[in-house]
Amino acid sequence: MKLKDLGEFGFIDRIRPETLVRPESVILGIGDDCSVCRSSPDRVTLLTTDLLVGGVHFHLEKIPPDLLGRKSIAVNLSDIAAMGGFPKQALVSIAIPDTTRVETLDAIYEGMKSMAREFDVNLVGGDTTASPEHLVINVALVGEAREEEVLYRSGALKDDVVFLTGPVGDSAAGLDILLENRSFDGKDSLVQTHLNPRPHLKEGRIIATQKAAHSMIDVSDGLAGDLGHVCARSGVGAIVEEARIPTTELFRAYCERFGLDATRLATHVGEDYVLLGTVPENSAATLEKALESAGCGFYRIGRIVEEPGIRLTARDGSTRKIKPSGWNHFA
Amino acid sequence: MKLKDLGEFGFIDRIRPETLVRPESVILGIGDDCSVCRSSPDRVTLLTTDLLVGGVHFHLEKIPPDLLGRKSIAVNLSDIAAMGGFPKQALVSIAIPDTTRVETLDAIYEGMKSMAREFDVNLVGGDTTASPEHLVINVALVGEAREEEVLYRSGALKDDVVFLTGPVGDSAAGLDILLENRSFDGKDSLVQTHLNPRPHLKEGRIIATQKAAHSMIDVSDGLAGDLGHVCARSGVGAIVEEARIPTTELFRAYCERFGLDATRLATHVGEDYVLLGTVPENSAATLEKALESAGCGFYRIGRIVEEPGIRLTARDGSTRKIKPSGWNHFA
Repeated sequence: MKLKDLGEFGFIDRIRPETLVRPESVILGIGDDCSVCRSSPDRVTLLTTDLLVGGVHFHLEKIPPDLLGRKSIAVNLSDIAAMGGFPKQALVSIAIPDTTRVETLDAIYEGMKSMAREFDVNLVGGDTTASPEHLVINVALVGEAREEEVLYRSGALKDDVVFLTGPVGDSAAGLDILLENRSFDGKDSLVQTHLNPRPHLKEGRIIATQKAAHSMIDVSDGLAGDLGHVCARSGVGAIVEEARIPTTELFRAYCERFGLDATRLATHVGEDYVLLGTVPENSAATLEKALESAGCGFYRIGRIVEEPGIRLTARDGSTRKIKPSGWNHFA
Repeated sequence: MKLKDLGEFGFIDRIRPETLVRPESVILGIGDDCSVCRSSPDRVTLLTTDLLVGGVHFHLEKIPPDLLGRKSIAVNLSDIAAMGGFPKQALVSIAIPDTTRVETLDAIYEGMKSMAREFDVNLVGGDTTASPEHLVINVALVGEAREEEVLYRSGALKDDVVFLTGPVGDSAAGLDILLENRSFDGKDSLVQTHLNPRPHLKEGRIIATQKAAHSMIDVSDGLAGDLGHVCARSGVGAIVEEARIPTTELFRAYCERFGLDATRLATHVGEDYVLLGTVPENSAATLEKALESAGCGFYRIGRIVEEPGIRLTARDGSTRKIKPSGWNHFA
């Protein structure tokens, strides 16, 4: 059997059986942004890991090494944010081809440390090894949360408001600029969003402490894919209003300039690292206020419905189904 | 600057500065088999990770996929054993070339699960991604220990007895058989020790609960290298009696048959995954009895001395210095 026939999520489903031999210490295993394990009576441990492979996730010609370091930590911080937790300790494994300069490695670690410093994370250990060809970085992150504040993908309920904590699409445009070597006024800002994402930990903590949201995820696979994860896990569907998807003026100008489908870029590429949540209508205004008074964003983009699948309501009122899928590593 | 001039341990020393931004939650960061972090009042969290890269750490033609899965978990379990702790939760990251068959992956995960099951470890999460060429597996393991039982590399004191919990060398011979395609009566047993090591968690727990040992490490880089780590970190040296290094009859027969330097194979290759500890003379007999009455091994191989470096006393009474180094990934 071929992996691409199974797909990334089919493969994960195949791994899942019999992974928990001591289920009493695990609140949630495989299947969310983090796993959630029991630690002290009122706190839980959040665990997450991300593997970045040169030639797949990054190209050293396209990303400065310090930003690669920052991003390798940031993507894990974003997973902790998506559960409503605090990040604590990081382990960094690195496999290094013998052509890599020590100065490049220094810059990678400087980037990791700067991101870790900004979010109070210790780099407590790791593994260093050789690689035959590609640079490989794995970060495992341990976080903490109050059990009653943890937000899962699986909690969305019919009639919930679907919201984002920031605009989407800039990262997709930035990637496009890098891959196509395009020149564009303001391209640096788009590229920067792709290379140096800010994990929405502050937003995640505000949403968690408000205790109003029903579900949360970070937008890494793309809005459609990640909303698809929430809906599939919650047994619901969603309707998103195309006009309400938050994007920047720069992003829209870029798409217009190069004739790109802005909605596709904003929904199906990913690496936005904003948070996507669902909250009941009667708590939405309070949550919005809490986020906005802290200088954070709250963008209503749609609503949870009973009917499975994700539908997009266009500006003219017409509705179409969109594929609830984003990035699939084995497709 | 080239990485090979710096070496693996020089590179790790270069990473270490400014890694702890919240030192109050960390008892030990980079530099031992696990990092040790504060969790509940009487328990500490142990964190460890190991990155296995195809073409460097394993060749799929040489190791059956289920044993690769077992070993990827076992090497991390061995790190938990070396601190005197209990393993709890594992995260598995995997980067997969598109030529890999799903059946191979199923076997890898079956092996991981079988090893995890034997030692009560949950596989709670991970990451799955594509790889341009080589299979890459990273395992991060979370364990637990009682703070007062944790054993570090840095605790060895002058006059301590140096001991091992099992024979060394079989794994090196097994690797040699695989690399040289050698045929030898009993080769399966040697190859098996290399491919399917048993983490000495039981031994680690007995040594920890006895509270007599001063230091501990697992033998992964080779007896000389790992004893070298203990001595360097403890600011001491060691004298090892060559005749007391425990090896199997099969190992000695193999070395004799192919004219190999048995002492070098037993001390400088590694992947033995037995434990090496130091204990004061007046507690050694009690510890030996505790281990042996549980069916575990205790082999005195030498003594900690003030003078730095590692010396080997040969059968004829002569003494020579040996390099306190084993495997170095960037050498």
